[in-house]
Amino acid sequence: MAFRSKLKIRFGDIDRAGIVYYPRFMHYFHVALEEFFAAELGVEYHTVIDTHRIGLPTVHLESDFRRPFSYGDNIEVEVRVLKLGRTSITFGYRVFKEGEADPRIVGHNVTVCLGMDNFQKMEFPTWIRHLFEQQLGSPAE
Amino acid sequence: MAFRSKLKIRFGDIDRAGIVYYPRFMHYFHVALEEFFAAELGVEYHTVIDTHRIGLPTVHLESDFRRPFSYGDNIEVEVRVLKLGRTSITFGYRVFKEGEADPRIVGHNVTVCLGMDNFQKMEFPTWIRHLFEQQLGSPAE
Amino acid sequence: MAFRSKLKIRFGDIDRAGIVYYPRFMHYFHVALEEFFAAELGVEYHTVIDTHRIGLPTVHLESDFRRPFSYGDNIEVEVRVLKLGRTSITFGYRVFKEGEADPRIVGHNVTVCLGMDNFQKMEFPTWIRHLFEQQLGSPAE
Amino acid sequence: MAFRSKLKIRFGDIDRAGIVYYPRFMHYFHVALEEFFAAELGVEYHTVIDTHRIGLPTVHLESDFRRPFSYGDNIEVEVRVLKLGRTSITFGYRVFKEGEADPRIVGHNVTVCLGMDNFQKMEFPTWIRHLFEQQLGSPAE
Repeated sequence: MAFRSKLKIRFGDIDRAGIVYYPRFMHYFHVALEEFFAAELGVEYHTVIDTHRIGLPTVHLESDFRRPFSYGDNIEVEVRVLKLGRTSITFGYRVFKEGEADPRIVGHNVTVCLGMDNFQKMEFPTWIRHLFEQQLGSPAE
Repeated sequence: MAFRSKLKIRFGDIDRAGIVYYPRFMHYFHVALEEFFAAELGVEYHTVIDTHRIGLPTVHLESDFRRPFSYGDNIEVEVRVLKLGRTSITFGYRVFKEGEADPRIVGHNVTVCLGMDNFQKMEFPTWIRHLFEQQLGSPAE
Repeated sequence: MAFRSKLKIRFGDIDRAGIVYYPRFMHYFHVALEEFFAAELGVEYHTVIDTHRIGLPTVHLESDFRRPFSYGDNIEVEVRVLKLGRTSITFGYRVFKEGEADPRIVGHNVTVCLGMDNFQKMEFPTWIRHLFEQQLGSPAE
Repeated sequence: MAFRSKLKIRFGDIDRAGIVYYPRFMHYFHVALEEFFAAELGVEYHTVIDTHRIGLPTVHLESDFRRPFSYGDNIEVEVRVLKLGRTSITFGYRVFKEGEADPRIVGHNVTVCLGMDNFQKMEFPTWIRHLFEQQLGSPAE
């Protein structure tokens, strides 16, 4: 089963229409990604940036919002590696309301490997490529 | 020329990698959309929600991030109506650094017309459809 | 020992100066308060607002930021009831880096009991007053 | 008349209680401070940090929230220099609804002068001290 980060819709996440302000989900995608690094790859995301000096800026983002979430909902954000290139990696996200089988949000983002010291695109170092490869093809459920 | 909302990258928009945290751009898309309603449609977005009881939740989002922005950048977020259906409307966004001809971010989101009192999808009322129609086909530049 | 909510400093919490953007701590205060309601009072904050129709807007806020936090820090936000009036309640917060004995941030906010249907200040209903009273005088450590 | 930054309450600023999520005002304080630097001091805040390598982290914050703001409100955030020390400066903020004489929010924060290269507290360099001094004693209205 793919990794899931358990989160909760907060008071301040709600917008004037009474549902979650959709940019907040992009933040939740990122929080879940940070948890994914720590739990599944065994390296903290901040270590990747601050120590290994590798950044993963998003160059493409797509997301479908099928049904809304409300304040107080317990959610699970699934994270998977969908595709791995020499200089880019695509992460897939599915957001479930706790206890539901169908995701309410499905999205993915393409990120590129960036050297933090020169801000140039680079190939993934072997060590991190291996970590990503182990996650390829993990079943969605 | 299409509508542009002039904004500025703020201190708190920057992430650990020293560039704009990408979920902030989804917020800027929305801020620019709110400005677009007031400036181009002649009706404030909060009036649409609070008085006319119509919401426009996002059901699909796509965005390409071609080049990053830095703290202090003056930006212009262009908003256009790309497509108008009976119950949905697609807004297009392009984000320029002030003075540049090529956008650094290009995106769009599909929103649906939602009755705020029953949270059901509905057809656009005639008055707002007419406002949207006048924006269709506005040239990108 | 007083209630503590365990949180983590996220990628997007960091500002241009490389430390946590201080408004984010007000958000963390609120998240910890929401957790406090669920864990210590036995009623979810969203139930208080949505079902019991009671809001707790902040009318006064004070906070000392003694030492900064960095990306990836595990933090603990302590929440206590400092003072209980007929129509107001003061919550105290202390933010610790995991494993440290001295808090890096100490703050409190005064909130008032507001009827959500008429937005008028009101006395706390007995049931919630009793819940708050049980928390009074809980030792800081 | 003291400097005022004109801002607008946005869709995503609203919380579950239908008013502005109070941590957002700390963000607005900061945005207004950034505008104050550009408009009144003649130096952009990002230049102070990125070029002059001086940061101004907040060490103390106080704020009174007298009346709430709603979605769509046009607001003016007044910024003044309240107090200037050798290594610290206190900024005062008052938030008005456009057209109103009485502020709805009154607050201040104490910030310290921090060398960004060593993260040590330092005395203000003469050039920036002079800029701050010119702002001392500006009348509130």
